[in-house]
Amino acid sequence: MANRGFASDNNAGVLPEIMDALVQANKDHTRGYGDDDYTRKAIGLFKNEFGAATKVFFVFNGTGANVVSLQSMMRPFEAVICAQTAHINVDECGAPEKFTGCKLLDIPTPDGKLKPELIAPFLHGFDDQHHVQPKVISITQCTEMGTLYSLDEIKTICGFAHKNNLLVHMDGARIANAAAALNCSLADVSVNAGVDILSFGGTKNGMLMGEAVLVFNPELTQAVKFIRKQSAQLFSKMRFVSAQFTAYLMDEKWRKYALHANRMARLLALEAAKVQGVRITQEVQANGVFAIIPKDWIEPLQTTSFFYVWDENRSEVRWMTAFDTTEEDVNAFVNHLKSMTR
Amino acid sequence: MANRGFASDNNAGVLPEIMDALVQANKDHTRGYGDDDYTRKAIGLFKNEFGAATKVFFVFNGTGANVVSLQSMMRPFEAVICAQTAHINVDECGAPEKFTGCKLLDIPTPDGKLKPELIAPFLHGFDDQHHVQPKVISITQCTEMGTLYSLDEIKTICGFAHKNNLLVHMDGARIANAAAALNCSLADVSVNAGVDILSFGGTKNGMLMGEAVLVFNPELTQAVKFIRKQSAQLFSKMRFVSAQFTAYLMDEKWRKYALHANRMARLLALEAAKVQGVRITQEVQANGVFAIIPKDWIEPLQTTSFFYVWDENRSEVRWMTAFDTTEEDVNAFVNHLKSMTR
Amino acid sequence: MANRGFASDNNAGVLPEIMDALVQANKDHTRGYGDDDYTRKAIGLFKNEFGAATKVFFVFNGTGANVVSLQSMMRPFEAVICAQTAHINVDECGAPEKFTGCKLLDIPTPDGKLKPELIAPFLHGFDDQHHVQPKVISITQCTEMGTLYSLDEIKTICGFAHKNNLLVHMDGARIANAAAALNCSLADVSVNAGVDILSFGGTKNGMLMGEAVLVFNPELTQAVKFIRKQSAQLFSKMRFVSAQFTAYLMDEKWRKYALHANRMARLLALEAAKVQGVRITQEVQANGVFAIIPKDWIEPLQTTSFFYVWDENRSEVRWMTAFDTTEEDVNAFVNHLKSMTR
Amino acid sequence: MANRGFASDNNAGVLPEIMDALVQANKDHTRGYGDDDYTRKAIGLFKNEFGAATKVFFVFNGTGANVVSLQSMMRPFEAVICAQTAHINVDECGAPEKFTGCKLLDIPTPDGKLKPELIAPFLHGFDDQHHVQPKVISITQCTEMGTLYSLDEIKTICGFAHKNNLLVHMDGARIANAAAALNCSLADVSVNAGVDILSFGGTKNGMLMGEAVLVFNPELTQAVKFIRKQSAQLFSKMRFVSAQFTAYLMDEKWRKYALHANRMARLLALEAAKVQGVRITQEVQANGVFAIIPKDWIEPLQTTSFFYVWDENRSEVRWMTAFDTTEEDVNAFVNHLKSMTR
Repeated sequence: MANRGFASDNNAGVLPEIMDALVQANKDHTRGYGDDDYTRKAIGLFKNEFGAATKVFFVFNGTGANVVSLQSMMRPFEAVICAQTAHINVDECGAPEKFTGCKLLDIPTPDGKLKPELIAPFLHGFDDQHHVQPKVISITQCTEMGTLYSLDEIKTICGFAHKNNLLVHMDGARIANAAAALNCSLADVSVNAGVDILSFGGTKNGMLMGEAVLVFNPELTQAVKFIRKQSAQLFSKMRFVSAQFTAYLMDEKWRKYALHANRMARLLALEAAKVQGVRITQEVQANGVFAIIPKDWIEPLQTTSFFYVWDENRSEVRWMTAFDTTEEDVNAFVNHLKSMTR
Repeated sequence: MANRGFASDNNAGVLPEIMDALVQANKDHTRGYGDDDYTRKAIGLFKNEFGAATKVFFVFNGTGANVVSLQSMMRPFEAVICAQTAHINVDECGAPEKFTGCKLLDIPTPDGKLKPELIAPFLHGFDDQHHVQPKVISITQCTEMGTLYSLDEIKTICGFAHKNNLLVHMDGARIANAAAALNCSLADVSVNAGVDILSFGGTKNGMLMGEAVLVFNPELTQAVKFIRKQSAQLFSKMRFVSAQFTAYLMDEKWRKYALHANRMARLLALEAAKVQGVRITQEVQANGVFAIIPKDWIEPLQTTSFFYVWDENRSEVRWMTAFDTTEEDVNAFVNHLKSMTR
Repeated sequence: MANRGFASDNNAGVLPEIMDALVQANKDHTRGYGDDDYTRKAIGLFKNEFGAATKVFFVFNGTGANVVSLQSMMRPFEAVICAQTAHINVDECGAPEKFTGCKLLDIPTPDGKLKPELIAPFLHGFDDQHHVQPKVISITQCTEMGTLYSLDEIKTICGFAHKNNLLVHMDGARIANAAAALNCSLADVSVNAGVDILSFGGTKNGMLMGEAVLVFNPELTQAVKFIRKQSAQLFSKMRFVSAQFTAYLMDEKWRKYALHANRMARLLALEAAKVQGVRITQEVQANGVFAIIPKDWIEPLQTTSFFYVWDENRSEVRWMTAFDTTEEDVNAFVNHLKSMTR
Repeated sequence: MANRGFASDNNAGVLPEIMDALVQANKDHTRGYGDDDYTRKAIGLFKNEFGAATKVFFVFNGTGANVVSLQSMMRPFEAVICAQTAHINVDECGAPEKFTGCKLLDIPTPDGKLKPELIAPFLHGFDDQHHVQPKVISITQCTEMGTLYSLDEIKTICGFAHKNNLLVHMDGARIANAAAALNCSLADVSVNAGVDILSFGGTKNGMLMGEAVLVFNPELTQAVKFIRKQSAQLFSKMRFVSAQFTAYLMDEKWRKYALHANRMARLLALEAAKVQGVRITQEVQANGVFAIIPKDWIEPLQTTSFFYVWDENRSEVRWMTAFDTTEEDVNAFVNHLKSMTR
């Protein structure tokens, strides 16, 4: 138990199917950098999922996927519009600014979700050389607050963006949890809704490592492979990320595990909410639970099951569930919560 | 046979010990980003190997290791001195310039090796605001030409560098092959010889992925963790690179496999040299063989065993051996070579 | 009249003393890039004004001064804290991000002025590799809103910054107007209050072009000359900016003209405030006047005397006075304002 | 005499016509940043000179012109091909790498001039993600060695470039001297020969400051104004650079002064060559003279007339003439040279 908890979905390990795939892929030689059958197979599965026109570029991690995506969409005098809570804004140590040279225009939101009416005030100064030129709207699905954009909301933002000559980037570090929760396909939540480039995440839902930049907008594809390499995101033994993706996409494995993680989050929220002193602060739509708890509970709770404080001032904490979270994990934690009330 | 060849040591797979280590590490939860026991253990092994003062930062790949290293040593108006054949100069799609903003001063060499007398003409313009300021000498061990710096040669370059207020970066993508060939420790070939920062490579000698930036110069350590993160080189499920390094360093596994690869290269060179029409162009000191062969042999040879043409004009090709190259592989290839002479 | 107005203090021309100085400096040859007597003299005057330890670097324009200053203080993973209205944040087309790679943490303020209590919430995540590291507080004196920091307020911010291991940059594009208004020396408002680096502006108070980066913190001086050159901010015929600065600093010419501009702004605010429908929105402490006026007045007013709309939603406009604004200019404009009420 | 010499054409001052133009432009207000009649007039003259489709962007200095030009043509993974002696390669403190993130591929030449056969070996690795992608050929006219490309040579390079999908940048810091020497128009030497973007220099031929980026290729124009501003190269009181350009272009003033400088260089070379011990090393085609002289002459000569040592090993020096060099200056210097032989 000491080693299990709700700190982050990246504290969990690797799906058994994926570890098997790695072992299976480890034979003989293959050419490096993606010129191999494992990679061709994985790319084929992505094209099945997202459409044949999709261009697929595997990278190492989420920050890598985001900076390759943004560099493919922008020039340095342009700006990204994002929620203030966006991973690109607060959790990447300034990587987007460093890689692109661009400014991020970050917008406060109650729930991590952008809306046209929140974005509109930032759409000015077009063609004015003194001002950065808004070019990309970056949304996260599911958001860093554990909330979801509905399919209609994504379509609305994409329509709004394109009408204003902007592009849409989706940070899909947890896109599996989103598609599972919305009971739709991965394409529905992204390309079918109008997204131009998607950072497709696998690590948080059970891959060892590896994300994919999926380019749906055909005007943006040409430079991506050079950007990936120059950004130090090109894997030499590519087959070992490709084999993971194949296992992940086959038979919608991603959905099975994401559904489970989501279910565990709902259970945790439901049970925790019953504990006196616990207040759930965001709608639990995927695999994250945000709650305000008494300040003096935090440290004792963390000693047995580590988690992160989200907002120290409000005493708000974040609990993430993962593909391997068990009901026993949840019950044990809720019992620990209850024990604090005495 | 169709899938085996001499294209690159990164076309080989993963050492069995390392795949085992990955499977073993896949249980329960651990904190992300290196705050885990797997990582502490691996770092401990590196400190055993290179000295307790060594600071260890795992990254994804060789280009990542190089750009994190260089950013830790330089400001944008400074310059790196390197051999014209250096990986940072020709094989990283300009990543060093992009990440650092710096100029590379590349020096033609016959064998991929820098020497003080080659470097000296570039050491001018110090304190002159119009000129980039030489700051780092980057050497590759073993070189991209399959040659080796002797320990004395490294010491000489490091002494020369420090006397001129320069720092020394070593690109050690194949440092295992070097230390194996020189029959010395990994420390002897780097920190003990005066190197300031080492890009320590694992992938080319049997890891799935993962390199390490080893900082020996205590004045350079402070910013590295931020540089790594901002460069999108921080692994979330860090245990899965750490476990690999532990398996790799334990009982000098790296040496065993590197010795084997080196031996296979010598065998290949020895036998190939006997074939009429083949001329070995570089001393075979590690696991690379460079040879000039008749132009019309290249394509038929590549169809059964892919390799890269190094210099089209000279009809010079490169054959790399790996930890899993067998004598049968070598003999089959040499037979194929021989068959071309008929 | 058609060519005079309140659009910006940079719409005015060049002080007669400065044009004379240019004509006088135009004889014979001098060495380029600042190795000349004109430059030595100007630097001497800056040292008289700001202290002998001050390092002086002339640059072309205000954005140039700001980006050279910030690059001298920061590494790419660090952050600048500034007011949301700061010139570096909204009027430089993302130059700070492009040149430094850094994130700007911008803070909403009612009057363009930062305060420790506004900054404090941004001082977290220190030593956490996921987050940009706050390093510089940048304040503008006078602010873009025409307001002033008192000497005590600057000292308080500098003390707060240094206590938190931060540095202070002052954007002094209008520092002359500030020192004139506060009836103190240029040093009082900057180095004596604890500022580390000052962007010293001359253009908005009557120079043809030219700003100076003044480095007070001795730890920050070493790289500046290289940063200036690499940032394309090194003037070849340096004497022609130096001669301007000499004329500007001699006999406190800067003060005479700044006092005049400030007086004209107060007059304009006083008289405009009497016009029904005009509401002055910021305290008029220097040479800028901010006012809300009826929306339908804007266009007719602009046709005879151009000015900028500051906030379209609020119908807030900005009127700037300059060294050559006359009482006639003010009266004519106020009469035009009055004519709108009929 | 003490203040006159042959160090650089930027050691001379400002043409009398240009100083007059500055004085004349100093009245009343004009809008900033180029929205003024002075600027419209100057741009009109440029369009007359180079064709109505030319886009004109004034900047501060030569390095500024070059980095704005290159940023307009390239993405960070692309490369500039240039002569090893190019100003962008050796005299800009790495500004091109810093601003663009690109690699410079520098080519040794005997006379500062690129030729297709010198460039061809660098045109490989296209579409290979590991290698920077050649995109721009940058030539300097006249070269840093005082030599000239003939019109045919420029056409040949431009044709070669475009055939290979490359663009051509011309660093025209001394384009006036080139067009004067070739007895052709400024357009003939640039746009008419196929150049895509020209850094048009004025400072070295008698302007106070100010260069222009002239964009001939219509596909490259869109982003330039933002790049200029973000590169801190936008002049607020633009009229004061525009008025200079108008005076400079009117009645081909540039030609008159360039012809004079060129004539003085030929005279100097002719007379110096007669001095025992002096060897002219480059054909004198414009306003630069390169000569090898005895090492022990250098210091005594520099004390009365400063100049730069070009190549210390060869004892090669550079003498530049300017618009205001007189025959007396030349004779006095040659006499000094002669006096060294005794």
